[in-house]
Amino acid sequence: LRESSVAADSAERGQYRHFMQKEIFEQPRAVADTLEGRLSNEGVLPEAFGVDAERIFAAAQAVTIVACGTSFHAGLVARYWIEALVGLPCNVEVASEYRYRQHVVPKDSLFVTLSQSGETADTLAALRIAKESGYATTLAICNVPESSLVRESDLVLLTRAGPEIGVASTKAFTTQLVALLLLTLTLARLHRTSIGDQADAARQTALLRSLPAQLERVLALDDEVAALAEQFVEKHHCLFLGRGEAYPIAMEGALKLKEISYIHAEAYPAGELKHGPLALIDEDMPVVVVAPNNALLEKLKSNLEEVRARGGQLYVFADDQVPFQADPGVTIIRVPETDDLIDPLVFTIPLQLLAYHVAVLKGTDVDQPRNLAKSVTVE
Amino acid sequence: LRESSVAADSAERGQYRHFMQKEIFEQPRAVADTLEGRLSNEGVLPEAFGVDAERIFAAAQAVTIVACGTSFHAGLVARYWIEALVGLPCNVEVASEYRYRQHVVPKDSLFVTLSQSGETADTLAALRIAKESGYATTLAICNVPESSLVRESDLVLLTRAGPEIGVASTKAFTTQLVALLLLTLTLARLHRTSIGDQADAARQTALLRSLPAQLERVLALDDEVAALAEQFVEKHHCLFLGRGEAYPIAMEGALKLKEISYIHAEAYPAGELKHGPLALIDEDMPVVVVAPNNALLEKLKSNLEEVRARGGQLYVFADDQVPFQADPGVTIIRVPETDDLIDPLVFTIPLQLLAYHVAVLKGTDVDQPRNLAKSVTVE
Repeated sequence: LRESSVAADSAERGQYRHFMQKEIFEQPRAVADTLEGRLSNEGVLPEAFGVDAERIFAAAQAVTIVACGTSFHAGLVARYWIEALVGLPCNVEVASEYRYRQHVVPKDSLFVTLSQSGETADTLAALRIAKESGYATTLAICNVPESSLVRESDLVLLTRAGPEIGVASTKAFTTQLVALLLLTLTLARLHRTSIGDQADAARQTALLRSLPAQLERVLALDDEVAALAEQFVEKHHCLFLGRGEAYPIAMEGALKLKEISYIHAEAYPAGELKHGPLALIDEDMPVVVVAPNNALLEKLKSNLEEVRARGGQLYVFADDQVPFQADPGVTIIRVPETDDLIDPLVFTIPLQLLAYHVAVLKGTDVDQPRNLAKSVTVE
Repeated sequence: LRESSVAADSAERGQYRHFMQKEIFEQPRAVADTLEGRLSNEGVLPEAFGVDAERIFAAAQAVTIVACGTSFHAGLVARYWIEALVGLPCNVEVASEYRYRQHVVPKDSLFVTLSQSGETADTLAALRIAKESGYATTLAICNVPESSLVRESDLVLLTRAGPEIGVASTKAFTTQLVALLLLTLTLARLHRTSIGDQADAARQTALLRSLPAQLERVLALDDEVAALAEQFVEKHHCLFLGRGEAYPIAMEGALKLKEISYIHAEAYPAGELKHGPLALIDEDMPVVVVAPNNALLEKLKSNLEEVRARGGQLYVFADDQVPFQADPGVTIIRVPETDDLIDPLVFTIPLQLLAYHVAVLKGTDVDQPRNLAKSVTVE
């Protein structure tokens, strides 16, 4: 199946210039497919993860998530969700670090791996180590049903992104976020935390079902982001800032720009700005900000003032409803209003579009960026 | 006391051109002072942390470390130490993120803050939140005895770095590492893990007592690193790589270069290279590698071959004993052989020297880099 996709010719790209572009626009469908059959009006169906998942999840007392690259960023978002909404401790770690250090296995801990291909060498090695080290259960969140990761894990939730050809991962990431949201909500219900209340289940189901339409709405920013991309073409650096769940989304935005545009983009939690990176700020270092309308917004705004005061150019992806003052140094890109729970998914889209359009303007090989392979099957 | 130091005139710098340079060279003494009175032949004296520390540490079942900037990097090193040598789960988090998210407090958990000034706003706020949220004990590792952080914590271990005037932290960082090593060895002994065995205590004490002399030896690299710095002056980017405990040291090296040389330096765990940053590698992106002689060295070497194959220039800080092949694209800087346990301290020094000499060659304001303040007492 994958073989034939890789050999796909330009006809398969249809109206799109690159596979990456096609895959960005496929996200509403990929997310809908990943949700398909996994929701009822009582919430997420635990059996979506495997036959014994309900019992296993109810007994879990901790969650460890291990992944590489883009998948690692999805894991970092899940940490915020799981600790806040389930109340279980959640650790997220890069697979190449995890596998080579002596680590402590928490009691009754769920070990979760994330990988598009299911053949990522470090992630697979980490899973094999985890199976020998006393984790209660292993769960793979993966896009390839016949992969090693899926075969070797106790529980599986397949993302249904379809074949991803572009080396820079897009729809695999957002469907991983959907899978992790399903995991969070299932754990919350089984651990009877407030967000898991029956009363909320209908609202959550409705919210998840609204996701494809919300992603369509944010994809409509394409032309605006394409125009914005022109301001990045001549840049060699870029800083991405976020707080809370928006910080890993900033990391993912920076990684996309690195991968396909060869711009040295780096993400920071906005509160760390004063502890070093502020020294880099000048007119040649644009600052991209992920600013959903949540409790952290006022804190974020004061960080942005520091950037402005040092002559930095700001590009703020902000919620529709946020009263941001645009001034000559601040460009605001309005993202359709959404719910806190799905902000990470929604705000990912314009950052993918930004990296894509900058790469196209720079004339790089978007689908096959230099030095990178689609699946990192060696260490 | 601090007032008068800040007002210090050039006479106080003695033979040194900048306070930062003076503080780099003060590290053997600062480390010796931090060890003073805290070691016996049976190992670390638990009462160094406070009167009831022995009982409290013996009961601890988890460790949470919260800090900002350079202090955060010290915390990240401690995570490797504590999980491997004590066998307790250890979480390390940026204070500005920790304080604003709903987090889970592990049972019988020790809450550790790290700060040079003891007035870092986010770290202090995190401590206040922790005190309300059910941690067993709070421990401050801090350089200023009369600070808020010290006054508000149950236990205290003062680093005795002396006043640090340069905005870019150097001796505060290495003395924090010493303090965290004292904490690790104390916990290991009280939790009876193998490294805490009585048999090892004498060896550990001897190793710690050898630290000042070892740091003196590595400071002798100054001229070699100063010459090397010339190759970085015209660069705008730099990548720092490490694995295991050397990864946070790579992060700290990158932060120094950012802070005072205004070079966009970024650190990655070497295993993540293939998941994105390799796309950035070309002759304009030097790659600095922290390569102590440990179990991860062979893995690291294969990462370096990938960099070489893409035309990247490598600058490898390697143990004396490591058979590294120097070739036209690879510069090896030999660091005097040392012990795994103190590698993070030893390898920090040449990276501080590198940032310092690059900054001097660039003519930046080394002690007062643009946009940064010494103590970040506001959010």
